[in-house]
Amino acid sequence: MTVNIASQPQKLIWLTGLSGSGKSTIAQALAQELTAKGQANYLLDGDILRQGLNSDLGYSEADRHENVRRTGEVCKLLLDSGLTVIAAFISPYRADRDAIRAKLMPGQFIEVFVDTPLEVCEQRDPKGLYKKARSGEIENFTGISAPYEPPQTPEIHIQTTETSVKRAIDTIIQSLEKAAS
Amino acid sequence: MTVNIASQPQKLIWLTGLSGSGKSTIAQALAQELTAKGQANYLLDGDILRQGLNSDLGYSEADRHENVRRTGEVCKLLLDSGLTVIAAFISPYRADRDAIRAKLMPGQFIEVFVDTPLEVCEQRDPKGLYKKARSGEIENFTGISAPYEPPQTPEIHIQTTETSVKRAIDTIIQSLEKAAS
Repeated sequence: MTVNIASQPQKLIWLTGLSGSGKSTIAQALAQELTAKGQANYLLDGDILRQGLNSDLGYSEADRHENVRRTGEVCKLLLDSGLTVIAAFISPYRADRDAIRAKLMPGQFIEVFVDTPLEVCEQRDPKGLYKKARSGEIENFTGISAPYEPPQTPEIHIQTTETSVKRAIDTIIQSLEKAAS
Repeated sequence: MTVNIASQPQKLIWLTGLSGSGKSTIAQALAQELTAKGQANYLLDGDILRQGLNSDLGYSEADRHENVRRTGEVCKLLLDSGLTVIAAFISPYRADRDAIRAKLMPGQFIEVFVDTPLEVCEQRDPKGLYKKARSGEIENFTGISAPYEPPQTPEIHIQTTETSVKRAIDTIIQSLEKAAS
């Protein structure tokens, strides 16, 4: 497979939002669309990193900071290799997300707020985690027993209850193309 | 830039050896040669990772294990993105290197022993570290005050006092091409 690896700095598309907000769904569709366009990209998913690189970390506040710090460093390496990077992480703390932004070049960090009301996420509950969080079986659960600090000025704000996945992808890709031109 | 990203599993070329053995020199020349051949690749260097992802780690035995564990996980991500990966790390413990090998597919891990006698490394001492290790200014220094466990059956064994960098690169590339055919 021959793909285009651009010589200019690549973008990091960072999707943040509650568990069940739709981050992974959007991230996977975006990765497929970029691949179809011949744009070399890599998707980092929070759940997957917790099985490997971050398998030693739990869900305490300190471990959540470290989870996002390490992920940001991996994103830097992937960007440096010439790939567009898509990262789907709850990343509940604003300061952690801003720290990644600060380590990149201006315009390189595209923060996408996947904004789904807690009630909707809890109703979907695709992994049954909200139920466990409400019963106390899971501690430190974002939105229930741990904080989520929404982005104040994200590059892209997707209200999933009003926007289709396709339209969300189109918005992100337009933003990438605009930034590149 | 258009480069070839192969669809078959890529290789991890893991260079292990003492500080000052010539790992980075060989790694950089190899990366340049692969790039010249249009082979998408990425070089991970121990010194650079210690400024970022592994900046929270020191040189105790536990931290060295964790340094190599995290690096192996990052290599897996980079391989998964379709890149050939070159890693230059002292990685003194055999078990840590073998753990990375075990996480990859058979034949994917190419261990290159950059074999330079301690006396030669110490004479070169490009960063003045051996001097500091001998004086006790640096503790836990591999080869002086911390162990180095050489590979027993590396895929490639380079004795740098008898082999030029160019010949070392040729040997590694032949091994890659042989493995791919």
